Amino acid sequence: MHLESPFTFNVEAVCPWSGARAGNLTTPHGVIQTPVFMPVGTNATVKALCFDQVEATGSQIILANSYHLFLRPGHKRVEKFGGLHKFMAWQKPILTDSGGFQIFSLDDLRTITDEGVFFKDHRDGQEYFIGPAKSMEIQNSLGADIIMAFDECVKNPATFAEAKKAMDRTHDWLEKCVSTHARKEDQALFGIVQGSIYKDLRQESAATVTAHDLPGFAIGGVAVGEDRTAIEDIVLFTAPLLPQNKPRYLMGVGTPWDITYAIRCGIDMFDCVLPTRLARHGAAFTSEGRVQLRNARFAEDEKPLEPGCDCYTCSNHSRAYLHHLVRLKEMAAASLLSIHNIVHLHKQAEACRHAILQGRFKDYFEGLVRQESCLKA
Amino acid sequence: MHLESPFTFNVEAVCPWSGARAGNLTTPHGVIQTPVFMPVGTNATVKALCFDQVEATGSQIILANSYHLFLRPGHKRVEKFGGLHKFMAWQKPILTDSGGFQIFSLDDLRTITDEGVFFKDHRDGQEYFIGPAKSMEIQNSLGADIIMAFDECVKNPATFAEAKKAMDRTHDWLEKCVSTHARKEDQALFGIVQGSIYKDLRQESAATVTAHDLPGFAIGGVAVGEDRTAIEDIVLFTAPLLPQNKPRYLMGVGTPWDITYAIRCGIDMFDCVLPTRLARHGAAFTSEGRVQLRNARFAEDEKPLEPGCDCYTCSNHSRAYLHHLVRLKEMAAASLLSIHNIVHLHKQAEACRHAILQGRFKDYFEGLVRQESCLKA
Repeated sequence: MHLESPFTFNVEAVCPWSGARAGNLTTPHGVIQTPVFMPVGTNATVKALCFDQVEATGSQIILANSYHLFLRPGHKRVEKFGGLHKFMAWQKPILTDSGGFQIFSLDDLRTITDEGVFFKDHRDGQEYFIGPAKSMEIQNSLGADIIMAFDECVKNPATFAEAKKAMDRTHDWLEKCVSTHARKEDQALFGIVQGSIYKDLRQESAATVTAHDLPGFAIGGVAVGEDRTAIEDIVLFTAPLLPQNKPRYLMGVGTPWDITYAIRCGIDMFDCVLPTRLARHGAAFTSEGRVQLRNARFAEDEKPLEPGCDCYTCSNHSRAYLHHLVRLKEMAAASLLSIHNIVHLHKQAEACRHAILQGRFKDYFEGLVRQESCLKA
Repeated sequence: MHLESPFTFNVEAVCPWSGARAGNLTTPHGVIQTPVFMPVGTNATVKALCFDQVEATGSQIILANSYHLFLRPGHKRVEKFGGLHKFMAWQKPILTDSGGFQIFSLDDLRTITDEGVFFKDHRDGQEYFIGPAKSMEIQNSLGADIIMAFDECVKNPATFAEAKKAMDRTHDWLEKCVSTHARKEDQALFGIVQGSIYKDLRQESAATVTAHDLPGFAIGGVAVGEDRTAIEDIVLFTAPLLPQNKPRYLMGVGTPWDITYAIRCGIDMFDCVLPTRLARHGAAFTSEGRVQLRNARFAEDEKPLEPGCDCYTCSNHSRAYLHHLVRLKEMAAASLLSIHNIVHLHKQAEACRHAILQGRFKDYFEGLVRQESCLKA
């Protein structure tokens, strides 16, 4: 990291047993206490919420999607507004992904070359190209605090050859990203380690990617179709290969358990659409596991969704009321459950943070492992 | 009204030119400054909003629908919770309608007799009956501050004979409502004047309905299918037939202009789904008239929806951002536009109230009539 950089990462405490860390990450739009869960605001909006509600959940940073914003409203239009913070009126830190993950998810609508990806808009079929330089252009226009390298993310399961080819391209593209990133002074570029479930590839990728002096590093390709045990194994293997003094971001994760496990591996940041997507389908995280509010057993239940939870939803509403809203497909159901689910993940991360700071993370983690409820959630 | 009643209506000022009034209405859940617009919370939720957002719009009272709540979750279930205020966690005043209007809108799904209406649930086809006594039972269970008599509301245009038959039934049913209303001490029953567009019927209905010593009176049947001029004529004719010292409620109205005109006629209360329904379709009230945010001309417009408006939406977001959300059918579009539209109607009512209190309502009203923009809205 350059000396004049507005980005600093300070590790406050490390769990000697696991390597789990508590830290703080300074960005141009504020300091983030880690480990941190980042809600996803795909289209420059966290679905079903207004930003005062997002702020009230205690969110410190949100993620937005370059692919979606490139298509609509267009990164140049956002730039004209003075960037994404101004466009969506969110003054805290933002992270944008590179667009790669969404494009690779298009399957039949895209063609990959060594230069980048040709793809068709999932809505109107129009053709576009994004490669590493274009991704940097888009993300420089959007102006997030943290931006991501353009990587190739293979679907799991992938053969060793497929995984290696994608990894090699990811490394080539990282060079291009580093050389074309035009706002190094106020946007932190994170490199991404790939390699699917192959540990020798992950090792090679970690070495290659961390050879760049970047302000942070991510582990990619763990949220697409592999079974949980294989992914946990890879995260446990890969996280310690990343520099101790830089933030580590596990992309697209996850459930309350996934987050806890990632923290145990030494991860500092994660994002996932799960809390808001589950909410739109009437489901919620609780300490008893995941619950579906549509279920008839909640029809007369006067208790809050999670007794003791101080989120807006639990402070004001009963399970019966949420059940009623979910049954009638009222939008407030999605809003109220999104609030609770996001708060639930923030609390999960905060509980880990406090345990790390207080030197009792091993006990805390082992206690959770014994609770089947956490694994169910 | 009984002496021990928690309901008092105090007329603070009357415009000598028009009879427009400013007052305050005391209810068990607080004092309402009139004239007042009441947002509609059909299913015990104001669509697309959480109640902290409703409260932040300055809403003093909201309306909920007996028909919907009778079917789902059921009035007995709400009663078990301690009533609607507790069930939906809204501590300010509530008004419930009688269910009549929704049932009569079912057309082919209902059969009217002198006892009440047999109808089929619009969702699952199950058969039910609601008459005046049942409507009182439902509304007593829901426990709103203000409840409405069960009336027959004819579709406009109606023949004189049809209108008279419905009016006569409405009068018979009012007797039943008065005699079966079981919570007179803490729920104010309002009678409803019917008679379609026939002035002699409206006159007869006003005389018959106001012969009951009720805490308030409403004008019904003006929001269903008649042209604006005929309705305005009927409101102007009927409002002065209602007691000066009781609140007057015009049901199902309306646009910013409709509200202003109703106030000019001496109306104190109105409700309408329009602000929230328009919001869900991307439209907003402004001082320049109604606008559709989907329109391409807003794509790069950095101004707030209504410059000078201090609502959450206008304080934080640009027209371009709202355009973006509307185009992508993001739920936040419905929330943000609902907030603005409700605030817009509250401001319209408040502006009238202040003009009445300051003795300048005639000038204010005539100024609006000259502004074509207001009529467009």
